[in-house]
Amino acid sequence: MAVTIDDIRRAAEAIKGAVERTPCQRSRTLSQLTGADVYLKFENLQFTAAFKDRGSLNKLLSLTPAERKAGVIAMSAGNHAQAVAYHASRLGIPSTIVMPETAPFVKVKHTKEYGARVVQKGLALSDCEQITNEIAAKEGLVFVHPYDDEKILAGQGTIGLEMLADFPDLDTIVVPIGGGGLISGIATAAKALKPSIRIVGVETELYPSMYNALKGGPAVTGGQSIADGIAVKNAGLITREICKRLVDEFLLVSEESIERAIALLLSIEKTVAEGAGATGFAALLQHPALFKGRKVGVVLSGGNIDTRLLANVLLRELQRERRILTIAVEIEDRPGILAKVAALVGDAGANIIEVQHERMLTDLPAKGAQLRITMETRDQAHADAICAAVRGAGYVVRAQDMRAHH
Amino acid sequence: MAVTIDDIRRAAEAIKGAVERTPCQRSRTLSQLTGADVYLKFENLQFTAAFKDRGSLNKLLSLTPAERKAGVIAMSAGNHAQAVAYHASRLGIPSTIVMPETAPFVKVKHTKEYGARVVQKGLALSDCEQITNEIAAKEGLVFVHPYDDEKILAGQGTIGLEMLADFPDLDTIVVPIGGGGLISGIATAAKALKPSIRIVGVETELYPSMYNALKGGPAVTGGQSIADGIAVKNAGLITREICKRLVDEFLLVSEESIERAIALLLSIEKTVAEGAGATGFAALLQHPALFKGRKVGVVLSGGNIDTRLLANVLLRELQRERRILTIAVEIEDRPGILAKVAALVGDAGANIIEVQHERMLTDLPAKGAQLRITMETRDQAHADAICAAVRGAGYVVRAQDMRAHH
Repeated sequence: MAVTIDDIRRAAEAIKGAVERTPCQRSRTLSQLTGADVYLKFENLQFTAAFKDRGSLNKLLSLTPAERKAGVIAMSAGNHAQAVAYHASRLGIPSTIVMPETAPFVKVKHTKEYGARVVQKGLALSDCEQITNEIAAKEGLVFVHPYDDEKILAGQGTIGLEMLADFPDLDTIVVPIGGGGLISGIATAAKALKPSIRIVGVETELYPSMYNALKGGPAVTGGQSIADGIAVKNAGLITREICKRLVDEFLLVSEESIERAIALLLSIEKTVAEGAGATGFAALLQHPALFKGRKVGVVLSGGNIDTRLLANVLLRELQRERRILTIAVEIEDRPGILAKVAALVGDAGANIIEVQHERMLTDLPAKGAQLRITMETRDQAHADAICAAVRGAGYVVRAQDMRAHH
Repeated sequence: MAVTIDDIRRAAEAIKGAVERTPCQRSRTLSQLTGADVYLKFENLQFTAAFKDRGSLNKLLSLTPAERKAGVIAMSAGNHAQAVAYHASRLGIPSTIVMPETAPFVKVKHTKEYGARVVQKGLALSDCEQITNEIAAKEGLVFVHPYDDEKILAGQGTIGLEMLADFPDLDTIVVPIGGGGLISGIATAAKALKPSIRIVGVETELYPSMYNALKGGPAVTGGQSIADGIAVKNAGLITREICKRLVDEFLLVSEESIERAIALLLSIEKTVAEGAGATGFAALLQHPALFKGRKVGVVLSGGNIDTRLLANVLLRELQRERRILTIAVEIEDRPGILAKVAALVGDAGANIIEVQHERMLTDLPAKGAQLRITMETRDQAHADAICAAVRGAGYVVRAQDMRAHH
């Protein structure tokens, strides 16, 4: 057996005090919403805002004095980079992080600020592999793998110890899967402590890499996932063996479910989860029947989401709920019409926040124009009532499923 | 003395188990950022997402059986409404909440869902007073004041007990002031436990009501504050006496500081603070010299911020940091120019996210046009470099301090 509960217990001792023992708390409102009894594990409250602190630190602490002196190298555009950089600096170990040139500005900046040497190469993470190997060989650095490493797995497994220490009666734990390190560690700990526990792994539909590896599904992975932290094309080799043995269920969730999960965690729990971090909760939203009536621990694995992306997710969610509604109204292009339409909308109780007057559309008569009005409404029913009110006054109205502009 | 430490200790006993004992935690990054040693008290993690749970519940528990049976009435468009409605329902006490017709949809909805009868009247909270008194008199209801009430103050004071229990060596506590209930309670508790502690009250510049009451400043209050929870025109009478006696310093902060505080709490602490809730931390941002080197407890008093407003705050902050930059470029209105300008921006490493081609501006020559290009940049220096690159190619460029559209 690659990693045992004893390895995880040793990891817990080793990293104690240098990583957060994050809170795990029941959410009344999310329980009500999903029909499950929901317990959230806030790994987004780690210092680098993701669970990666645990595994990285456990790995770094396992190095020999000579290895520490030589330094470490890792390849990551995200949370693994920050965790390795931060803990290596704390321990006085030189670190090199190889990132694609396309890595978000903020992540490069943070990784540098945590004290790493950052090398940027290529457009995708896969383009970083060769240079990483070259630098590692040339400078004699230890490569810190993001998931396929027993020390890393043992570190991540400490989350399972903490969740069952806080709530021994959990009967299910839901964990996002990228390379599979987080779930392998947690499953190893949880199944050893409580063999009856159900472990559910969740991937985004765009990157079903572990699902493919174990279920022989179609190998198509790719696309712009909001859950970039788990947008992994190939599951780990060590981790897939552990998942095969210990994970009871593999679920896929849509990008829309993940967005909705981010928005709900923010508005109800007042907490920031990144896409990957919200993927576990997204499974409860998308597959509620599988969790109903059960005591479910959900790992919020990280909180590093770009501010602009988060703002977009919030606006898109309002549009999906029709609390922001855009309608297109065909009008005659003459004075006074905007005032009339605006009055209809205002009388119906909606707050107009943006108006565009469009005259250059070929599907309109030459003397016609289109008003595009964006407004705030109470909810879907209110949005429907507003469309009905404007139509009732004789206008042709289309309600658009518009995306946010930003 | 209106309220004593013993009243607050009794309140703590009374409300125990029915309100959250919220976490109080040191923030390494915010400490580094401000030069103070910053400890955050997360009252935004109460069930109704604000400290109001404490005072409201303490008040409700003090009612006689006859009063409980008759029911309570409160007047609020915000957190007080939700707290009274929620705890009254829990205790089986009928509650009526009077809100202005302009109250945000979501707050009305939540208050109803918590089990209150909601009466909406008038455009402002002040328009609710008459009907509140009428209903209270007619139906024999107990009026629950949002701050000028000793039971309410004693409830809010339990926050002070908890902060000093967790961190006895705090030397300063920073508290937002609306009507003054929160700070009066906390100051009473904290000064009794530790007379040397410095209590700092913070108001938005738009509503300096306590500052005016005690310092005789100009009585001008008004405007659209993002800190609607503390946009109070008149300080309480009981609370102003307590503030006069126990509060060491009154600070005013700008709306911009509050917005920045919300954005930083979100991006660094992964927590959602509403405007009023972030006002204490805004004081550390705007007046850092007053807190440098001190152990400062900051009360994040609430987290109920409208999603659209929060999205706007995040986008505005990115624009202030110039991580979203809008430039206006004067061009000749002929084919190929957009491609040239876009290439200049792209080569400089910025990501274009919106383009508008404007031809109807009177300050342009008839054959001219203006490109308005919005892009993502790394930071201010990068934004400057981009403007310089476009100017270097011979274009007239204005960098605009644009607000977000939403």
